[in-house]
Amino acid sequence: MGIGSKPQASFPRNLEIPDRSRLDEWASEGTVACVNSCSSIGIGLAGFGTVGSGVWNTLQRNGDLITGRTGGNVVMHIAKILVRDLAKTRSTTTDAPAEMFTTDWHALVSDPAVDIVVELIGGTTDAFDIVAAALRAKKPVVTGNKALLAERGPELFAISRETDTPIHFEAAVAGGIPIIHAVQASFIGNRIKSFSGIINGTSNYILGRMTDAGLSFAAALQEAQNLGYAEADPALDVNGWDAAHKAILLAALAYGFTVDPEKIHVSGIEQVRPTDITFAKNLGYVVKLLAVIREHPSGAVELRVQPSFIPQAHILASVHGVFNAIAVHGDAAGESLFYGRGAGQDPTASSVVADLVEAARTLRQPSGHRGFLPYQESGELLPVEETSTPYYVRFDVTDRPGVVAEIARILADHGIGISGTHSPVNPSNPDADFVDMVFLLHTCTFGKLQGALHAVEELDCVNSTPVVFRIESLA
Amino acid sequence: MGIGSKPQASFPRNLEIPDRSRLDEWASEGTVACVNSCSSIGIGLAGFGTVGSGVWNTLQRNGDLITGRTGGNVVMHIAKILVRDLAKTRSTTTDAPAEMFTTDWHALVSDPAVDIVVELIGGTTDAFDIVAAALRAKKPVVTGNKALLAERGPELFAISRETDTPIHFEAAVAGGIPIIHAVQASFIGNRIKSFSGIINGTSNYILGRMTDAGLSFAAALQEAQNLGYAEADPALDVNGWDAAHKAILLAALAYGFTVDPEKIHVSGIEQVRPTDITFAKNLGYVVKLLAVIREHPSGAVELRVQPSFIPQAHILASVHGVFNAIAVHGDAAGESLFYGRGAGQDPTASSVVADLVEAARTLRQPSGHRGFLPYQESGELLPVEETSTPYYVRFDVTDRPGVVAEIARILADHGIGISGTHSPVNPSNPDADFVDMVFLLHTCTFGKLQGALHAVEELDCVNSTPVVFRIESLA
Repeated sequence: MGIGSKPQASFPRNLEIPDRSRLDEWASEGTVACVNSCSSIGIGLAGFGTVGSGVWNTLQRNGDLITGRTGGNVVMHIAKILVRDLAKTRSTTTDAPAEMFTTDWHALVSDPAVDIVVELIGGTTDAFDIVAAALRAKKPVVTGNKALLAERGPELFAISRETDTPIHFEAAVAGGIPIIHAVQASFIGNRIKSFSGIINGTSNYILGRMTDAGLSFAAALQEAQNLGYAEADPALDVNGWDAAHKAILLAALAYGFTVDPEKIHVSGIEQVRPTDITFAKNLGYVVKLLAVIREHPSGAVELRVQPSFIPQAHILASVHGVFNAIAVHGDAAGESLFYGRGAGQDPTASSVVADLVEAARTLRQPSGHRGFLPYQESGELLPVEETSTPYYVRFDVTDRPGVVAEIARILADHGIGISGTHSPVNPSNPDADFVDMVFLLHTCTFGKLQGALHAVEELDCVNSTPVVFRIESLA
Repeated sequence: MGIGSKPQASFPRNLEIPDRSRLDEWASEGTVACVNSCSSIGIGLAGFGTVGSGVWNTLQRNGDLITGRTGGNVVMHIAKILVRDLAKTRSTTTDAPAEMFTTDWHALVSDPAVDIVVELIGGTTDAFDIVAAALRAKKPVVTGNKALLAERGPELFAISRETDTPIHFEAAVAGGIPIIHAVQASFIGNRIKSFSGIINGTSNYILGRMTDAGLSFAAALQEAQNLGYAEADPALDVNGWDAAHKAILLAALAYGFTVDPEKIHVSGIEQVRPTDITFAKNLGYVVKLLAVIREHPSGAVELRVQPSFIPQAHILASVHGVFNAIAVHGDAAGESLFYGRGAGQDPTASSVVADLVEAARTLRQPSGHRGFLPYQESGELLPVEETSTPYYVRFDVTDRPGVVAEIARILADHGIGISGTHSPVNPSNPDADFVDMVFLLHTCTFGKLQGALHAVEELDCVNSTPVVFRIESLA
């Protein structure tokens, strides 16, 4: 590579120095052209929380291995670290020297010792400014920020195109699972028919505890927070938007354009109750927060995130706890599944480091970087009203003779078939007045369902907005 | 890229021509430097059987998509095709023109219209000559030939190093599953602790049919052959060597050196009987042909392929039919699993095409190709005698009082603990003279087990070599 202004001696203290004797040996065979003239590539780390210190530790532990595996072509070191508060720096678990830290992102991006910028601060404002400035300085960017790319990707990819400088984002989707690279490179010869993914570990943990231990949503969420699996503010995790941001990125890779987040249908797991879980189980399903992306024959892309019933026998049903999994169906590769740790310090660092090597390999190549660029001017999103599945719908009703008949009549008037209806009996009060009434509905469009549900809501015996789950065959 | 001697007009008939208007548009934005000067990259296809025609079809179907996804940087076409018999060519399902075919591999490799050579003829002799000649001509090689690389990889990687020309082999392991790329690029920052893989679909299909339908090995094999899942000569599939070749390649990526095939322990599924399957099921296991690769704290690498009991609850137990799956444990990424179609025309073509794009992207880059090169001079293989697991051992004995005591005594003398022993009773003849006697043994080294089994074989009541399965916890 021969890039980077930091000489060998500038390696951070205790960072394992690549075995120069081996590199020289390769160079003496004439097979690793640049080794003797190589200097180490400098990384600017914006953000030094969980993932940032994981990147530090991974490079310290395995830097020599990386250099060896690249035939001596990639030698990297962390040159500068952006933090919010210099005083807090000392409490980190790494031994990064104090002089490496700054609180000024301009200083990080413009430092000539920084060749590649890693953005790990989160959010969509400062992070945007840092990424944009790095690209304009022709410094490749590695980021794990799904919200940034899903919300402001079009702006950033335009700058990436303009500056011919890549943005890599393996860490933004499914932590340590290399799904971005799989779609972008390994399946490049495939038309992607669909993705079905469990891509929010917090939700999956909560649903799993509701299923296995019979916890309420609130109790399971509290447990997840106690274990550090959910943020103090868990909104984005449980309302489905974290998964939706990731789905937008997967769709961009597969279909070449960035879906507008305002146009997609997202619902989270806040309304899932133990009764839904039990009902699913009795029917041979499990409840998962599922992201579904599918290309229709018209070319329109369906993209949605919703709690769903999936068959117990499907491999996605075996994805437990905070793990993630993504099923991909390509027209050549057929059905594939990628499974692994969707978050956490080391898994996410693993993906950041892979992207760093990718960025380092193409640094100052004459042309043709490997970052994603939109390859369709625009694309068509299938309106959620036109998407079709069977459904499970739970109504909160005041029980009296005629309730079932009235709801069923409205569904029939809207042309929606019913495959079953059920009201879980409370054994201690079989004649309770307020009950959950569950309907299983045949496949129809979501628009038709919504029309019917609005009419049902008008009934005086229906007390709140009905709760809808998709039933997915995943065939 | 700007490589390749074939002008645009030389695209094979009916091959979808990339949308030049879009490329020009990008070029006019100044973001795709080479587009106007790009010519199409020529592919020489050595072998035009199932996978070869799959590559043809995939490029024909999705060539435009690939070009778009690479920002206009990769335009490819098939320039020449090597076949054994020109007369047979007509019967293929593609519309490749007759003048494209040759029976002379020298003509293919030396053709100036061929920039990249795809080796799909199989075997380790002619295939070796073709790959070596292509590398010496500085033409990158894409191959799906696991036997070639496992048996003669060291020779070929030496030529690859010497000529600075890559060999790509995603299609050699697990068909459409991008496990090679995952290990080589996505997990480059990981020390790989272990792999556990189901990487022979034929064996997995046979074991599955023995499990689900109670078929004998012979009947299940016949069924697999009738369905086209097993070759007319199924030896390499059922004797474990196909899986072993793939395991050798995975180990090379993870540990940097090529294990000598003569030094590893491989056993196949020929000796699996319905009684073993039933016994496993009753204990909560399923029988799978498992490839295990593991790095020990000493740095020694354990690599073996054997029929194994794996827990029914483990995700690998859900891998059915001809599917493949590989669990990978990296020190940063943690546990991952890759699942998909391990063979077949289109899945394998998907991997070949991904490698073609990779080769095309780095064609004539100044340095630093992406092909694998060994990065350890040599490595230590843990002798199979030193590997340890619990075992299931089936003895074919002549039943008489004292048999269990005699076998148990020998095992005790060798310091091997017994966790259970059992003789499946034949209901129609509970006092049969010749029976299967099964022992479940505590964890010990394979060497210790072998010593004991040799002694057991000396007993006059033992009629044949005991059959050994590993019991894997996959923790």
